[in-house]
Amino acid sequence: MKIAKAVITAAGPNQRTLPLQTLVDRDGVARTALAIIVSEALAAGVEEVAVVVSPGDEGAYARAAGIHADRLQFIAQPSPQGYAHAITCAKDFVGNSPFLLMVGDHVYVSALKTGCAKQLVDVAIAVDCAVSAVQATHESKLPYFGAVGGKRLPSRDGLYEVTEAVEKPTPTEAEQRLIVPGLRAGHYLCFFGMHILTPTVMPLLAESRSGGSAFAGALSKLARKERYLAYEVNGRRYDIGATYGLLSAQLALSLSGPAREEVLSMIVELLAARR
Amino acid sequence: MKIAKAVITAAGPNQRTLPLQTLVDRDGVARTALAIIVSEALAAGVEEVAVVVSPGDEGAYARAAGIHADRLQFIAQPSPQGYAHAITCAKDFVGNSPFLLMVGDHVYVSALKTGCAKQLVDVAIAVDCAVSAVQATHESKLPYFGAVGGKRLPSRDGLYEVTEAVEKPTPTEAEQRLIVPGLRAGHYLCFFGMHILTPTVMPLLAESRSGGSAFAGALSKLARKERYLAYEVNGRRYDIGATYGLLSAQLALSLSGPAREEVLSMIVELLAARR
Repeated sequence: MKIAKAVITAAGPNQRTLPLQTLVDRDGVARTALAIIVSEALAAGVEEVAVVVSPGDEGAYARAAGIHADRLQFIAQPSPQGYAHAITCAKDFVGNSPFLLMVGDHVYVSALKTGCAKQLVDVAIAVDCAVSAVQATHESKLPYFGAVGGKRLPSRDGLYEVTEAVEKPTPTEAEQRLIVPGLRAGHYLCFFGMHILTPTVMPLLAESRSGGSAFAGALSKLARKERYLAYEVNGRRYDIGATYGLLSAQLALSLSGPAREEVLSMIVELLAARR
Repeated sequence: MKIAKAVITAAGPNQRTLPLQTLVDRDGVARTALAIIVSEALAAGVEEVAVVVSPGDEGAYARAAGIHADRLQFIAQPSPQGYAHAITCAKDFVGNSPFLLMVGDHVYVSALKTGCAKQLVDVAIAVDCAVSAVQATHESKLPYFGAVGGKRLPSRDGLYEVTEAVEKPTPTEAEQRLIVPGLRAGHYLCFFGMHILTPTVMPLLAESRSGGSAFAGALSKLARKERYLAYEVNGRRYDIGATYGLLSAQLALSLSGPAREEVLSMIVELLAARR
């Protein structure tokens, strides 16, 4: 399996300006969230990136992509019909290739030198099938994420065979359907906002009803049609659409890089300055 | 003196996207930096706001202004000829009125319930002349700011009569020309990015050479023509164009409001999560 294509969704009606926000990356360079996420995809070996946008956002996004603009193409989602539909807009771009799917409102901070997307791509190439990045997440955060049920594979640490996926499960649903043996009590495998999918998923997405659970529904069907795994990526994701999401993403980026001491001093100074 | 007009400059070639950045304000509402600064002006009693922009930025800025869009008018600076020139582009808008001048790449966090702009406007009305907001600033930061020399007025705490203004003074210039008796050793009165100016300043700005010192030069001339004061506003300014400027502005805003504990927990969690 070769992962040469990436799809980034950024057409959510409330999220259109998020990829344009400026963050200072780990190395101290101010870049837009879009440029950071596109770099993450390119660093994972991807050659072509399609960004699904609201019609009319192409120009602003192309400027926001900076040096990566020539590696991008934009696909307009004609009307806001949800996440699953946004992905199907990239059907022709994807063709018969497996692809990396990322969301335009997340920033990923790897705990390793290797980026989160590269970790996921490496695993997908090794196992040669669809793989969703997941993170063991406390049940109190289930209202914010999709989650998968399945069982741990002995072959590799952090690798799971997925049996089904549920969007924002209730605690009862999660307890009945998504318990994964071996995880800490009260923890579930929630989506990390990054997937390697096979083109098989496109008709499944297209036939899903629209609405919040269409994506998870299509992945549940995928699990019944072909081998579909989940992998615990070594890093953290920050949803920059959450209220203090940009702040926490920026703090995480800067505290994990060479500016750590500068930013710690700033925090101490701000706390001390309060009257 | 009545201050019914404000001019916000936002046409700097490297700063055009700064007013579009999203910050969560003190009260937990996500707004653009432009909306935050326009609110600050309106809360100070201003009725009409003109924003000086690069040609073509009007649409994005109008959207970024949110609920305040109908209080704004945009004035294009035809080509980037510096800060003093940008202000003169608002000459017709200002007419014969004194006005509040603010910069589009700063966020102000008041230490009082009253916003920084309102503090300044109140003082200007009381003294009935031009007043620049200033902050006692350590000499190590002189390379980043304009500064004024003058002497403390006995009538009110934090109020100074300005004799001259110098843009980014060297330590020697500052020591020879800008020492203000009564300030802590090694501290100077640096601009806070907020001024109440009289229309007298317009021809002075127009006759200044362009370049970095044109604004301070015009203010020095203003001090020789009419009464011109400086006032130490009770608050802090954050230059969101600096590398970690957005981060420090966001931290300052959130640590000064009801989300203080939430943000402190986030910081502790991020520090603890590091491997």
